[in-house]
Amino acid sequence: MQTDDIDYCDQAVNLRGYLAFDEKAAGRRPGVLVFHEGLGLGDFAMARARMLAELGYVAFAADMFGERRQARNLQEVANLVGDLRNDPQTLRARGRAALATLAALPQVDSGRLAAIGFCFGGAVVLELAREGCNLKAAVSFHGVLTTRMPAVAGAVKASVLVCTGAEDPLAPPEQVKAFADEMRAAAVPDWQVVSYGNTLHGFTNPAADGSMLRTALYSAQADRRSWASMRGLLEEVFRV
Amino acid sequence: MQTDDIDYCDQAVNLRGYLAFDEKAAGRRPGVLVFHEGLGLGDFAMARARMLAELGYVAFAADMFGERRQARNLQEVANLVGDLRNDPQTLRARGRAALATLAALPQVDSGRLAAIGFCFGGAVVLELAREGCNLKAAVSFHGVLTTRMPAVAGAVKASVLVCTGAEDPLAPPEQVKAFADEMRAAAVPDWQVVSYGNTLHGFTNPAADGSMLRTALYSAQADRRSWASMRGLLEEVFRV
Repeated sequence: MQTDDIDYCDQAVNLRGYLAFDEKAAGRRPGVLVFHEGLGLGDFAMARARMLAELGYVAFAADMFGERRQARNLQEVANLVGDLRNDPQTLRARGRAALATLAALPQVDSGRLAAIGFCFGGAVVLELAREGCNLKAAVSFHGVLTTRMPAVAGAVKASVLVCTGAEDPLAPPEQVKAFADEMRAAAVPDWQVVSYGNTLHGFTNPAADGSMLRTALYSAQADRRSWASMRGLLEEVFRV
Repeated sequence: MQTDDIDYCDQAVNLRGYLAFDEKAAGRRPGVLVFHEGLGLGDFAMARARMLAELGYVAFAADMFGERRQARNLQEVANLVGDLRNDPQTLRARGRAALATLAALPQVDSGRLAAIGFCFGGAVVLELAREGCNLKAAVSFHGVLTTRMPAVAGAVKASVLVCTGAEDPLAPPEQVKAFADEMRAAAVPDWQVVSYGNTLHGFTNPAADGSMLRTALYSAQADRRSWASMRGLLEEVFRV
């Protein structure tokens, strides 16, 4: 497997993403974006990119904060995430910059793209889906489901998969219900929500031990199940 | 593959189930019950039993109505289902009779049992899980989620998987919410709910074309996805 840092930009903001792919594979392959949590592009999202590369995809972990900035504490997370969440147009443009970068790679089949995201990154993925980006699938893992710009009818083309902890205080049942209502109202052709019982926020990340965010806790079971659901969806949508 | 009719009984009621297994396999294997829809034990549940046998399980499709009775119209469905749904003790005993029959088969590992069910059968599966039956997993496909006997704390041992259509009028969002609340209140150690957008009742059954029940409609996509989720769960819980 080959991994590379890739510099790209959104307006005046320098972004440094992380690419992972099988350099021995021939021909153009589906490309999958990975959007990081509120901590910034770090080991976790990079590891997921490599896992996607092992599945045969060209994976590109985006940098949403610029200069690959990392949050060191919850206050920094709140600031970095808040700046983008409060300005969905900028957030979407930032996400689109990653999508365009991935789509332009010579080893990528630009007709077969998808995006996955974790926590904050889950929200990014859903924003790109709402915008009607050229994605076959959009998968949110323990992401916030609310938006300032709900999907409009007919806009969403991606198959949407939301994997959420039933006890995640960042995506409580009423938020899940509102999301389903948004999907219905927008006549989204393919969406599904998986709710894992006894499961908190951040369930895919082994580093989530409740120390930084009390309500973020790794669950090997929900991690495995949600990854399997994602794999299944990607296989579905990328089938020629 | 070998298939056999198996006669068993619950009190004075004669039941005729349907067994499917790989007669060439050696040793005791996990056993999986299949509970039929409101129409009675017919081609659909039998086909699912054979699909489970192809996965390596010993599958036993139960007869919940006696003498393998089939409903010919919605009124007969309502009568047959209503008699049992209104009398959950009898329904549970009827289900337990199938479980005991499967567990006693020489090719079955009685420590590794599970149950799946469709529509009415989904409700049966959940009743057995609530009762604390010796099941590793309980999977409901487009089943009704309500009960007259909610699970009590600590009773449920099975890993519970509910696959439901987001637009199923027999399991509307408020019912799904109440079910999740029941699972929480009963401290069920493992439960999950998958909700498929744009999906009505009866989505696993190719015969569901809206003609008998207007709101029952086959969805190849939701059928495939829910079966994959079931397979994943069975692999998980039957791992030695």
